[in-house]
Amino acid sequence: MSPDHDHPRPALTVDCVVFAIGDDGLEVLLIERDHEPFAGSWALPGGFVEMDENLESAARRELEEETGLTDVFLEQLYTFGATDRDPRGRVVSVAYYALVDRAHAHLAADSDAAAVDWHSVAALPGLAFDHREIVAAAHERLRGKVRYAPLGFELLPRHFTLTQLQRIYEVILDSALDKRNFRRKILAMGLLVDTGKLQRGVAHRAPRLYRFDRRRYKQLERDGFSFWL
Amino acid sequence: MSPDHDHPRPALTVDCVVFAIGDDGLEVLLIERDHEPFAGSWALPGGFVEMDENLESAARRELEEETGLTDVFLEQLYTFGATDRDPRGRVVSVAYYALVDRAHAHLAADSDAAAVDWHSVAALPGLAFDHREIVAAAHERLRGKVRYAPLGFELLPRHFTLTQLQRIYEVILDSALDKRNFRRKILAMGLLVDTGKLQRGVAHRAPRLYRFDRRRYKQLERDGFSFWL
Repeated sequence: MSPDHDHPRPALTVDCVVFAIGDDGLEVLLIERDHEPFAGSWALPGGFVEMDENLESAARRELEEETGLTDVFLEQLYTFGATDRDPRGRVVSVAYYALVDRAHAHLAADSDAAAVDWHSVAALPGLAFDHREIVAAAHERLRGKVRYAPLGFELLPRHFTLTQLQRIYEVILDSALDKRNFRRKILAMGLLVDTGKLQRGVAHRAPRLYRFDRRRYKQLERDGFSFWL
Repeated sequence: MSPDHDHPRPALTVDCVVFAIGDDGLEVLLIERDHEPFAGSWALPGGFVEMDENLESAARRELEEETGLTDVFLEQLYTFGATDRDPRGRVVSVAYYALVDRAHAHLAADSDAAAVDWHSVAALPGLAFDHREIVAAAHERLRGKVRYAPLGFELLPRHFTLTQLQRIYEVILDSALDKRNFRRKILAMGLLVDTGKLQRGVAHRAPRLYRFDRRRYKQLERDGFSFWL
């Protein structure tokens, strides 16, 4: 590494791929840009990293500023740095992905964004920059990681039915799962707690509500247990 | 995203965690720094990203310049951007990890590095910057990914015995594997080709040499096959 710090530097941004499960399956949160470049296009929430903030802090700040979302599950995805990805010049972007329960995600567009809304991943509009590629990379990460890490729960309310949980996996993996097998496997891991409550608004044989036992998962993980669905 | 491109920018570097399997188990390639900061300390090969090069190109260029290695398996790992990770000011580093067959990796130190050498991951010297944290993250990625992607072959010569392959997995996973189970599972995936050759220098019952069938793997992967060891 050269000690020279004065040569030209790429600009550094963060971008956030926020996933939720909606009526249309897997959805991603997009903002409508009201500045050039790509004014009027849909894009991922994101922006420039400040000199005195860490990368994840920048991602959370931009997400809150542009969409109103706070306290979400957020993980670094990949850094996109193709020399031609931004018409303004060299911009390298550290992408994050987030998972939220859409029913409890309260959105608010800010001054930088004309609008903020959910879009089906299967039918995306034209996106600014290389954001389609970033969404595709996040989707692939989610599909892979959901099988070996308990990510699915992040897309659900705190208390959920086994049917809701199975739908999360079916949507992400894009395939139907056998109900008995799914229940047997997920219950055998010992990570779900029966809350003793039943789903409201269901008259006949209301299904049980479960919650994910995060503390027990951490414990098992330390003991070498592998989540695998 | 603000259109303002003129505010202060972090410096952007790449760092490479190169793994190999040696007599001491899992090893990582380090260079001895001959410039400040951390002159005399061991560090990961790496350096500043040029304005006109992509991130992976920068990683490959720095790796070749500082260690002589070319044409290696290389993947992006994670981007490290803590505000205090470099005493010179704000430096964000995109880390890559690489896997090589140590027997065929020809090293050459350059002017930026006083020395370049392999070190056991289990007994690392003090490292410059946050490089210990970067090595730990790369080790964790390798341990996780080697089970669901055919990475182990990158650490072997083109033709290898099943015993050599099993040792790769035992070293990375840090646990003994049952020989019969391992052979049954790896052969059942249909990804190994019997070369018809035998290991040289072994007088009695010389073991067969296999090669990994990358083309078949790509084909199976497209058909939804999941590598799993």
